[in-house]
Parts: sequence; structure tokens; C-alpha cells
Amino acid sequence: MAGSTFGKIFQVTTWGESHGKAVGVVVDGCPAGLPLAEEDIQKFLNRRKPGQSVYSTPRKEDDAVEILSGVFEGKTTGCPISMIVYNKTMRSSDYSEIANYYRPGHADYTFDQKYGFRDYRGGGRSSARETIGRVAAGAVAEKILERLGIRLLSYTRSIGPVQIDPARFDADQIAQNPLNMPDAQAAAEAAAYLDACRKDGDSAGGVVECTVSGMIPGLGDPVFDKLSANLAKAICSIGAVKSFEIGDGIAAAKAKGSENNDAFTAIDGHIEKQTNHSGGVLGGISDGSNLLLRVGIKPTPSIAHPQHTVTRDGQPIEVSVRGRHDPVVVPRAVVVVESMAALVLVDALFANVTARMDSLERFYGPGRS
Amino acid sequence: MAGSTFGKIFQVTTWGESHGKAVGVVVDGCPAGLPLAEEDIQKFLNRRKPGQSVYSTPRKEDDAVEILSGVFEGKTTGCPISMIVYNKTMRSSDYSEIANYYRPGHADYTFDQKYGFRDYRGGGRSSARETIGRVAAGAVAEKILERLGIRLLSYTRSIGPVQIDPARFDADQIAQNPLNMPDAQAAAEAAAYLDACRKDGDSAGGVVECTVSGMIPGLGDPVFDKLSANLAKAICSIGAVKSFEIGDGIAAAKAKGSENNDAFTAIDGHIEKQTNHSGGVLGGISDGSNLLLRVGIKPTPSIAHPQHTVTRDGQPIEVSVRGRHDPVVVPRAVVVVESMAALVLVDALFANVTARMDSLERFYGPGRS
Amino acid sequence: MAGSTFGKIFQVTTWGESHGKAVGVVVDGCPAGLPLAEEDIQKFLNRRKPGQSVYSTPRKEDDAVEILSGVFEGKTTGCPISMIVYNKTMRSSDYSEIANYYRPGHADYTFDQKYGFRDYRGGGRSSARETIGRVAAGAVAEKILERLGIRLLSYTRSIGPVQIDPARFDADQIAQNPLNMPDAQAAAEAAAYLDACRKDGDSAGGVVECTVSGMIPGLGDPVFDKLSANLAKAICSIGAVKSFEIGDGIAAAKAKGSENNDAFTAIDGHIEKQTNHSGGVLGGISDGSNLLLRVGIKPTPSIAHPQHTVTRDGQPIEVSVRGRHDPVVVPRAVVVVESMAALVLVDALFANVTARMDSLERFYGPGRS
Amino acid sequence: MAGSTFGKIFQVTTWGESHGKAVGVVVDGCPAGLPLAEEDIQKFLNRRKPGQSVYSTPRKEDDAVEILSGVFEGKTTGCPISMIVYNKTMRSSDYSEIANYYRPGHADYTFDQKYGFRDYRGGGRSSARETIGRVAAGAVAEKILERLGIRLLSYTRSIGPVQIDPARFDADQIAQNPLNMPDAQAAAEAAAYLDACRKDGDSAGGVVECTVSGMIPGLGDPVFDKLSANLAKAICSIGAVKSFEIGDGIAAAKAKGSENNDAFTAIDGHIEKQTNHSGGVLGGISDGSNLLLRVGIKPTPSIAHPQHTVTRDGQPIEVSVRGRHDPVVVPRAVVVVESMAALVLVDALFANVTARMDSLERFYGPGRS
Repeated sequence: MAGSTFGKIFQVTTWGESHGKAVGVVVDGCPAGLPLAEEDIQKFLNRRKPGQSVYSTPRKEDDAVEILSGVFEGKTTGCPISMIVYNKTMRSSDYSEIANYYRPGHADYTFDQKYGFRDYRGGGRSSARETIGRVAAGAVAEKILERLGIRLLSYTRSIGPVQIDPARFDADQIAQNPLNMPDAQAAAEAAAYLDACRKDGDSAGGVVECTVSGMIPGLGDPVFDKLSANLAKAICSIGAVKSFEIGDGIAAAKAKGSENNDAFTAIDGHIEKQTNHSGGVLGGISDGSNLLLRVGIKPTPSIAHPQHTVTRDGQPIEVSVRGRHDPVVVPRAVVVVESMAALVLVDALFANVTARMDSLERFYGPGRS
Repeated sequence: MAGSTFGKIFQVTTWGESHGKAVGVVVDGCPAGLPLAEEDIQKFLNRRKPGQSVYSTPRKEDDAVEILSGVFEGKTTGCPISMIVYNKTMRSSDYSEIANYYRPGHADYTFDQKYGFRDYRGGGRSSARETIGRVAAGAVAEKILERLGIRLLSYTRSIGPVQIDPARFDADQIAQNPLNMPDAQAAAEAAAYLDACRKDGDSAGGVVECTVSGMIPGLGDPVFDKLSANLAKAICSIGAVKSFEIGDGIAAAKAKGSENNDAFTAIDGHIEKQTNHSGGVLGGISDGSNLLLRVGIKPTPSIAHPQHTVTRDGQPIEVSVRGRHDPVVVPRAVVVVESMAALVLVDALFANVTARMDSLERFYGPGRS
Repeated sequence: MAGSTFGKIFQVTTWGESHGKAVGVVVDGCPAGLPLAEEDIQKFLNRRKPGQSVYSTPRKEDDAVEILSGVFEGKTTGCPISMIVYNKTMRSSDYSEIANYYRPGHADYTFDQKYGFRDYRGGGRSSARETIGRVAAGAVAEKILERLGIRLLSYTRSIGPVQIDPARFDADQIAQNPLNMPDAQAAAEAAAYLDACRKDGDSAGGVVECTVSGMIPGLGDPVFDKLSANLAKAICSIGAVKSFEIGDGIAAAKAKGSENNDAFTAIDGHIEKQTNHSGGVLGGISDGSNLLLRVGIKPTPSIAHPQHTVTRDGQPIEVSVRGRHDPVVVPRAVVVVESMAALVLVDALFANVTARMDSLERFYGPGRS
Repeated sequence: MAGSTFGKIFQVTTWGESHGKAVGVVVDGCPAGLPLAEEDIQKFLNRRKPGQSVYSTPRKEDDAVEILSGVFEGKTTGCPISMIVYNKTMRSSDYSEIANYYRPGHADYTFDQKYGFRDYRGGGRSSARETIGRVAAGAVAEKILERLGIRLLSYTRSIGPVQIDPARFDADQIAQNPLNMPDAQAAAEAAAYLDACRKDGDSAGGVVECTVSGMIPGLGDPVFDKLSANLAKAICSIGAVKSFEIGDGIAAAKAKGSENNDAFTAIDGHIEKQTNHSGGVLGGISDGSNLLLRVGIKPTPSIAHPQHTVTRDGQPIEVSVRGRHDPVVVPRAVVVVESMAALVLVDALFANVTARMDSLERFYGPGRS
């Protein structure tokens, strides 16, 4: 109940602090027989690795993942998959000064209020390193989705005021610029914006977008476990996320019904929507068209810019957060958003298997073996 | 797992369809000794009752709630509180024609895809009547919050393009106009806008805002069960919701760190934030300042305007949804948003009680009786 | 978390007190398309109805069930099935005297300790009437099991010292004697024993047995959610249960490995066990042979026999529990045991559907529609 | 949902196979501020360590636990506690022959049925090594219980036909004989019995008993989450357990109400039961008297004695299980039973904190800080 477990059938439990011995995750409920190797996981972890550009922290993190259980002879066994990444660069001394004051925009104060004290080294449990477990689990989830023909595409939509231009959208660009933008020109402009921020000792936020194609209709449940609701929780559980939109999102609130409704049509007997304002869900259940999520991320709170705050005992001080920090977390958050969406989709796929009596009878019927 | 239960400790299970015999809710995990009467619940249900103005459906719904269990001699017993509202106006014939085609913007198609068929009468389980259970449970939750000094204030922030003006904000106005706007002038403008929509056979969406004062710091858990994440799920599980924001929300994505960070200060030894861009949470845990949520709601999909769609067997038809429908659901959604937020807060309050060993020892310590 | 919900995918929530307005249950997660009518439920409820013989309480309870939601045109819709039984014979005055003292063997004292007060009328929430919800849900579960070829057979194995003789086992007898024993001679002896108990103002306990045939191998999970563990919880959650055994049960503790192990054999390529000491589970997973459960039930605590106890404020008194009470609850518990076992089996069947990647791919594969 | 997580508020997730890289556990929901060191855990693990006598397997297992997260400066932080034990002695070749046939009494067959294949090395996930995670978590739970004055005492009650004599009960003996019996004479007789079994290539079962003193009344919930029900699940989730009893257990089924009821009495205003046939629970809720559990464990299925079985493809063979196996698992199961009971008690203590509105108001009331 301390909330380190996510999902109902495909259950993921993360653990670990920034400067503890290791971080990791246990994935329970993965079906047996999925081919899985450490490389499958590492590929995802590398997408969130810092130190790849001037726009992310220059810390060298190795983040080499090890699978400790649940895989035998190259395939998942149906038993929990435990994965671990040892923490290698632990310069706790960098952080000792923050033990005694509350950094604005960070969880220092709220941890102290909740628990009475905190592991202050590198942000402890609220560090971005916690997302390593999410991404490792997301890698497993995406392997499952891939085999069912479901593909996720995620990227940076905007950084500060710089937004991608849909007319220049090029998915191949995403991996080719350090900001993970599908638009080379926007990426260059965003880079210039970030340079200016950095010179000012400041930071920027931005927006991540995630689309899912190959969707299966019928995923999600009608009331509390709407697909959109579970995605909202998953995404908003990522540190620094301040907004979640599905489909047209906030813009739908200004539209009229006649504009926002997606007309149905039939092509060769196959029913489709002519537009996709809904973002792939109707009544909380997937409608077979692409999912579209949009995620607003606040600027990195750690800035060199001097700030007013207080010490643990309430004395005012001025601080300027030093150390190795990302001037923007958005590009590194892309794979985390994608991972969380993947976890929700796998869980919804699993829950949906028992939605109908006829399919259950087919599954367990006389022809079973 | 069909997702009709919400919450972990304070657990709410809703049931019922628009045109079935009744709708209801079971609230499990309510502490014993809370004074509770049907009037407490009715007061909340009346806030979502249609038929109160020209802007909501003219159906006469009685929505009289009955408490069936869990209350003895005027107080909760700690056992499940079952509440029921019988459905009185069931003119299913109004809906018989929709059995055979898919209304754009509705869940007809996705229910058929998921379950193979659907209770098409009045939208069945995906009708707004499902929210009766949520609001009845929310009324119990708000009674608990009230006793702990936590107060929720919810209202319509905008309808279509018409937004309240913060300079004219007047909480007393909320209950005085049928649109639940805290700004009489905006309410009048929104009414005019809705009149125009209705004449066009069209509908509008809008934005609901919910603030929570008297917050206790330390609520919410650091990882998946962030207070903000659970609120996001709760809110996005309401039909028609397309966006969720906390604090500055989407605007934070464009801000710089130096603008978005809230400085801490101390007043008479009491630590506070000087601003509240964060909307009351830091690292997913409440920081003691007011919670601020903003919820984008799409326009009502049922419009008189003719629309293209298909029948269940894929034949194209043009439809014009008749029947008694709200031209805008936003004002009625206000109490639903508030109720869902209240459920999350109570659950977070309960989960937080075991966050520290010292308070647990005090609770169960030698002085216990 | 107040524990009125059972199951993970097929979730059952009961509510109601003995002398409140009604008792009921919400079944969430039932697949769509299962034919279901009130008669299906009533048939099960009638099996637990009191007033059928001198060995059960002479109260006339109607216990007519009403389905309030989740069924449309004779079939389940996939949405929650709410079922209600109104309480008709409420002579609360019968119970007013027990408000002030603690009946030995009852939950009066523990409710007061936990909640500070209690709904004392007829035992409130800890009355056997609470099992109405379980049995109504069990009836739904057994309909699902039946369609998959799984059959449950439950009966009274012993009452006090009188035990059935396996050599005389006759399943047809179960419904033909008021004690639900599959052995007419034992039933007659048990009746005589109960007559003697009653004359002494005393009561008896006994043992219920439940067997499940047509089992599907592979149900249950290897660690905490062993099929046997979930059955143990389900059964021990029934009031008055004091022991749970699977297979040879307590006798296995005295056996040697060479006696207790079940040898495997193959008949026409089909692998079977030659014996069934294990009671149908190995490593917590069903092995395809019959499940066998044995449940020890304590004697009814309400006895006319004078007993020593104390009042709420600790004054000693002698009491003799009056009112209409079963001299033995075992025969009425038979259908409750069976219902709880059915709930566990359905949940295990549902959880098992995602145990293998290949079956998941078949389910969602290219050939899906 | 693959069932590797136990508990609702105090949640424990185990992972790992007998011959994988490691086994471990994540404990989520432990309050902040509990002093905790690896020695606290190691002490418990040593109680289950094999190789301590001729009656347990002569494998040398180091089982040195490492705490990877959730502890900072010697105290728990409120964040998940990840604990790992690397597997050191992996002679998988010992097991290669069992890959192709089904050992009687083991989970080989059921794993293959469920998952399509299995990690056959040393029993994989169904090995007793899986209990390392349970015991490590149990050690944390017992530290919490200890601070609240709750103490568990567990021991071997019988091995095969040899049972302890209550007249000779001596708790100090438990740690002084390799069979963990609180009766030196019974221990000697049991040892002789086991010697005879071993000579015959056979094995024995037995009974473990666990008592809990210092109990707090009010733990457990009235319906599905009865304390006794959750204990039953916890205990029956341990491999090889075939029966669970609480209080008088199976004997209660033969008793009369007048014998089985525990009379209440008051000593200096403090209400107590004069006897404890109920084993510390009434209506599923703790009554303040000692808990008493009794657990029947089957004989070790791995025996040298030749047995009939079949290969994976259904060919009959005769096998004689070689390798290093315990002739009896009962003594090593003692600490596992105790650990599982401790997990249930902590979870029940945590759930109970919100049972009453008045205590909640005290906790969060005006005087809170």
C-alpha cells in the first residue's frame, strides 16, 4: 500500500533509491514462453540513460541490467522476473548540504512531513533513477505488445515554447537528435532555447506525446478502470508530470459536439472512425483507432539560479542548486511515458480476456489440451 | 477486475444501468462512528440532479437515495454502507432505435466490440446515471474530510469559449446559477452561448475546477500512488473527461524552473510555500497548500445535428439523436469531479496513517484501551 | 479494505446486516453472455434457507432474490450484477437484551472492541444472513463452472460424533435428508444426536466436505495464490469454521512419503494420478484430479444452556440465549462452503487464462475478430 | 496476479528460483523509522537454514542476506525494502534427469500443465528456497510486532506419530534440538523415528504450532478478511501444508456448544475469556487472548524409495529420487509458518487503524503536528 506496485494482473513492483546499492523491479504475471534477454531490457534503459548530450546530466551511469529470475533457457517461465541495476556512481557528498534545507520544487519537504526524515542523497526514492525499474518493466510489456501487433511511438512534442510542426513530422528524427523530437528544425530551435536557459542557470519543461497503433478494440473497462483512467494514473505517477490529455484533450473542452464527434464509417465491412478526436477511446474502452496521449512536464526544479527557501528548522536561506542536473528532463521522460503506457496496455489486454463467456468457453472448452 | 471498485482502503463499488431497476453503490472501509443520514447523501445527489434548468435534460428524476446497511442508530458501524436509488422514469422505447446503430462519440461501438452485445437502453452502464453511485460515496467521503477540516470547492471554470474571470470570482455564485460558475457575468455569457448551441442542435464542453483547502501534508505515496496520480485516475474515470491538470498544469510545460518553483518560507516557525504553482503536491505527496485540479470535459455527444454513422452490420446511415439530453454536461459534472477527488483524499488519509513507526506505536502503545 | 470484497478478477462484494433493510451482493467481473435468471440464484438460496426442518431455526425467511443490474435480455452484460434480498422478519426486540452483554462464542465482544459499538440486532453483520450474498454470488460462479464441465458436490460428513460411512455413500441422499448427509443411516443417527443436544439446551458442530470433479489442470499460482491457499481463505472466512483440510489433510502429517505420494500413470497417453492423497493440487496448482476439501465447523454458540458472561461494563451475569437458533449450522453451511469454493475456482480459471504467451497470441492473434 | 505478492497494506513480493542467480523479496508499506539491520534478517534466515543436522539436507547454503534499499542510517525510510540472497551452490546437473519425468508429490506435472514447460533445476520456483523471501519479510514484520508487545512462539508439535507432551512443554527446548520441539523426550523419539524412515528411503510429515501472545483485540475484519481467514491463506500458501486449524480446530467439530464456548469474565474491570477454545478469534476478529494455529505438513515427497511415475511423454518409469533432500521439512517450516503469521498480523494491525472515526480524528486532529 506504500504504492510501489502497479497493475492488477501484470504487476510491477519497483524499489531502490538514487544513492542506495541498486534499483530494480519485479514483474509478476508475465505469461510463460516469451523470449526475453537482458539485451531486450538494456535497449530500453539506454533510451533513458543520461550523459548522451549536453542537454542531459553529464553523470556517467552504466545502468547495466541483470535478470535475476523468471527466465529459463531464454524464455519467461511465468514466475516473477526480477531485474536489478546496481548504482555505480555514488558521490553522496555532492548532496550532503541538501540534507538540511528544502529545495524548491522537490519532494524534500513532503518526505520529511510524511516520514519524519528522508534519504536525502540524490533525491533518494524520488530521484529519476526510480524510473529505471519502470522502463525495465516497460521493455517486457512492449515485447508482449509487439507480438500482438501493437506498437508505441513516443517523442518530445515541445520544449518550452518550441513545438514540433506536424508538417515536418519525421519519426526517424526521434532517435537522431538528443531531444527526441520528430522534427529536426524544432529540435535545433529547442536546443538553442535550452542553451539560453542553461546560461541563465535556468531550466525548461515540455510536452511528450505517445501514440499507439495496431490497437485492439475492447480494452479497458466501463467505469473506474477505463483505459484512459488507467493511462492517466500511469502517466501522472511519473515525477514532474503536471497534465494528461487523451485525444484532443483540453481542446475538446472548447469544441462543439458536431466538431468533436468522430463519425463512424465502414470500409469493406470493417467499421472505423473517420476522424480521431477521441484519441482511441470511447466510454473508456479502446475503439481500435490509434491511442494518442499528451503529457505536460514541468521544468527541472534543480536550477543554478539562486532561490529562497528554508532550512529544516525554518530558517530562511538562499540556495543555488549545484551538482549534475538535467536542464530539461523531457527527452529522457519519453521512454518512461512509453513504458508506463505499455504497462497499462498489457494489463488491459489481460483483463479483457475474460470479458466474454463464449471466448472463455473456447479457451477452456472440450478442445482444450 | 471489471473495474467497478475504486480505492484501496476506502473502497467504493458502483453498479447499475440507466434503465435497469436501480443504481447503487457499496462503500466499504468507512470508519465506525461517523454520523450519517440519508439527507447527507441526498444533498449531494441533488447537486447532480437533471431537470433543474434549461441547460440540463428536462427528465424528472427523483433520485431519492436509501441507505440499506452499515448505519445503526444514526452512525456508521464500520460495515459496508449499501445505498440504492431506484430508477423511476424508464421510457426504454425512446432508445429502441439506437439498438441497431452506433452513436458517434458514445460507447455503443466499444461495448459491442468488448462484450458482443450491450444494454442499449439509455446508454446502459455508460450512462451518466452511473455517477449517482460515485456521488453518494463522495458524500460519505466529504463528511469524513469535513471532520478533519478539509474542504472541497468545485465549480465550472469555462463552457465552450466562455471562461470565468478570476477578478470576479465569487464562490457564493456557484450555487446561484444553473451553470455552477463562480462569476455571474461569465454564467450569463455561457448561458447565451449554450442557447446558440441548442438552436443549432449542437452541444458544448467546458472545464471544471476543484480546489481543496485545509490540506494535511504527507498524503500520497512517492511512486505509483502519488496523490496526483490517483486523482488523475479518479477524474479521468468520469465519462467525457479528456484532460487532467494539477496546479499550473499544461502551463507549467512552458514555464522556466525559476518561474515554476515555489519558494519555501516560514511564518512563525510554520513552513509554507510563497506561491502554489505545484497545486499542492510535491513529488506526488501533499505539501499542505491547497490542491488545485482542472478537468477538461468534451461536448455532449448526443446532438440533434445530423451525423453520419453505421449500423451494427456496417450500413451507413444518417442519424440525429433525439430524446432528452443535456446540451452541456459540465455543470452536472462539477459534483462528480468533487466526489471522485474526495474518494481519493480519504483513501490517501487512511493509507498515510501507517507511514511512521512512531505514530503506529502511539496508536497501539501501552496507553491504548 | 474492510474486507467485504472477495476475489481478484471475479470480484464479489457483500453487504447487509441481519436486521437491516436488506442483504445483498455485487458480482463484478462476470463475463458477458452467461444466461442468468433469478431462478438460478433462488435455487441456491433455497439450499441455505432455514425453517426446513426441526434442525434449523423455525424462522420463516423468504429470501427472495432480485437481480437489480448486469443482466439484459436474459444474459449477463459484463457489468456488475447487483442482487438483493430484503429482510422481512425483523423482530429486533428479540435481541434487545443482548445489546448489553457479550454472548460467549459470538462476535459481540470483538465488534465492540474494534468499532466501539455494534448493531446488536440478530448478530448484525456477523449473522449467518451475511452468507446470502456469498451464496447468490456462488450461484453465478457455479453456472460458469458448469458450462466448463466443472461440478461441485458438497455434503455433511459428520455431526458431532456421527460420521458418514463411505461404504454407504449415496449422493442422492444429500437432498433427501434435512442434514444433507449422503448416508441415510448416518443422517438418522445424527438426527437422534441432535435431538438429545436440543433437549439439553445444547448444540453440535460437524464437518462439511466438498469435492470438485471435471477439474482443469493448471489452476492456481505457485506461491501465495496457490489454489489451496485461496480455498483455505475462502472457507475459513465463513463464520464458525475452525479447520480446513485439503486431500488427506491432517492425516497426511502422520503418513510416510511412500504412502502419501500419488504415483503418476498414463492411460492412452493421458497422464493421471493413481491415487489422490493430494486432493487435486500439487505445488498449489490443480493436477486435474478431483479437488477434496474438508471443513470443521464449531457448534452453534447460541445455546439455551445457562452460561457465565459479563455485561459491556464488566459485570458478571448468567445468560441463557433465547430466540430462534439452529441447534446445528452444519447442514446450512454446506451450500456456503460450496459457494465459496466456486468463487475461488472461477477466479483461478480467469487468472490462468494469461499464464502462457502462446494462448494469449491465439486469443488476440491475427485470426481474432 | 501471478500471485507473488502477499498482503494489502504491508505488501510482500517474493521472487527467485532454487537454481537461478538469487532469491529475494520486496517489502512495501513498512512504516518509516523502524531500526533495521541485516543482522535482524539474518537471525531469522538462520532458523530455516539447512545443513544444521542429519535431519535436514546436508547442502551448505550460505543464505547471507543483503538489504538493497529502504533503509537509511539504520532505519527504514517508508520506501520499499529490497532484500536479496544470492544462490551459491548451484549443481544443476544433479537435477538434469528430472527434467524429463514427473516426480510424484512434486509440482513438476502441474507446472508443465500450466506453463508448458518449467525451470526444473532444484524445483525452480516451487523449491523451498522460495521461502527465504517470506522469512526475510517475516523478520521485518516481527520487528514491528515486537515493538507493539506482540510475540510469536512456534515449534514442531509432532513428527509422524510422535507428539509433544503438554506436561513436558519447555519453550527453551525449541532451539536446543534440531527438530525444534519444545519437549526433549519427544524430540529424541522423533529423531529415532526419522532415522528409521531414512533407512527405509522414506520420509515423514508432522505438525507445526504457532502461538501469539500480547494480542491486541479488534484485529481482522468481519467478513472475507477475517483474521483467521487471512492466516489460513498465509499458512496454506506454504508448500506441503495440508491442513490449518485455529484454536481447538478439528476437535471443535465434535464438541458441544456448552463445551466449546469460552465464558467471559472480568478481572479488575478487564474483560477476558476463561478458556480459549476459540484460539483468540471470535467472528474472525482477535479477542485479545492468545492466537493458536496448528498446521499439518505432508511428508517430503522426495524419497529414495522407488516409485512409479511417467515421463513427460507418458512413458512409465520407476524412479528413486536422489540428491540432497530433507527427510522431514517440518522443523525448517517452523520459522516459515511464524513468518507468514507475522505478515498477516502486521497487515491486520495496519488495516485496523482506520476502523474508528474517533481514533482517526485523534490521529489527524487539531493536535496533530
